[in-house]
Amino acid sequence: MFVVFEGGDGAGKTTQSRLLAEWLEEQGRTVVRTRQPGGTALGTKVRELVLDPSTGDVDPRAEALLYSADKAQHVAEVIRPALAAGADVVCDRYVDSMIAYQGAGRVLDPAEITKLARWATGGLCPDLTVLLDVDPDDALAAKDLGDRLESAGESFHHRVREGFLALAEEDPGRHLVVPARGARDEIAARVRDAVTRLREKPGG
Amino acid sequence: MFVVFEGGDGAGKTTQSRLLAEWLEEQGRTVVRTRQPGGTALGTKVRELVLDPSTGDVDPRAEALLYSADKAQHVAEVIRPALAAGADVVCDRYVDSMIAYQGAGRVLDPAEITKLARWATGGLCPDLTVLLDVDPDDALAAKDLGDRLESAGESFHHRVREGFLALAEEDPGRHLVVPARGARDEIAARVRDAVTRLREKPGG
Repeated sequence: MFVVFEGGDGAGKTTQSRLLAEWLEEQGRTVVRTRQPGGTALGTKVRELVLDPSTGDVDPRAEALLYSADKAQHVAEVIRPALAAGADVVCDRYVDSMIAYQGAGRVLDPAEITKLARWATGGLCPDLTVLLDVDPDDALAAKDLGDRLESAGESFHHRVREGFLALAEEDPGRHLVVPARGARDEIAARVRDAVTRLREKPGG
Repeated sequence: MFVVFEGGDGAGKTTQSRLLAEWLEEQGRTVVRTRQPGGTALGTKVRELVLDPSTGDVDPRAEALLYSADKAQHVAEVIRPALAAGADVVCDRYVDSMIAYQGAGRVLDPAEITKLARWATGGLCPDLTVLLDVDPDDALAAKDLGDRLESAGESFHHRVREGFLALAEEDPGRHLVVPARGARDEIAARVRDAVTRLREKPGG
């Protein structure tokens, strides 16, 4: 099973993916926890490259292509081999993040970004995407605003949130939307329920 | 005018692009000489990242996406602004290299690589591409075989050459194919003639 956590900065993706991975492991599953961007040596370098101020202004197409390269490498090197070996994969951010963030930039056609991300991942879709939905006004107050994405302005983050919600609405059977302000353990329980339901589905 | 030099390693692209740039400058033109990959801070970092052994095996899609990112940044940051300011641009390697090298890898569909490269460059095509056609058996003997591409094997380089020649045949009006083993100054003269002919064409 391939489960992805999505949501803005400060939504609690890292905590929730850890809790899910621990629960799966308690049940005897082998779990690979990973993240995008990053998750491979190539991905980590791509992430550093984009965030490094000495790179200068990154062209929007170049940025979309770099994040797509991260995805391609991550799927080929980590996710597909883990799934093929029978492990569960729990991943912080995936294609939805790319579409939501790049789309919120309003420079590139969202349909083109989607096509690019799908080509990069060879069409590999998560069985479940958990969207930890967060109000940017709450989340930004709690975070360091040092890097490029986080200094992009408040309206940008509202468009990112709308992007995530739109993707969840397009494919509700594979998305679980949870308000990120809820209690940590209640959110974790809802995620476990969704995973259990998916497993019980025919072919799940 | 946007002129690109293509060809395998050791074909003499750097020398010939310098000679063309000097000739154009003698005629009072402003010339921007540049290269792919590289040519921008982002492109240089991408190139280092792909060639660095610590990156590990780069997935073919990831590699195509990284080189596309280099192209997108290069077009946006260097080539389009230079052309818009009325300068001539002389570039070592461009889209043909990506199609020839990635296509020679035989993993990805050449039509998909072409689509990717065209999206990355926003469809910007050179006015003239000079292919310095070289027999890989001659060129490899003269070069250090240290990096990833050059250690990929001899048959690979033969497929790269075939790829370049096929692209030149597809669009002969914008390509000049010159045997790279000819005398340096004779090759330079043929390039100057081709540039002059292009300029004299209506709209050239």
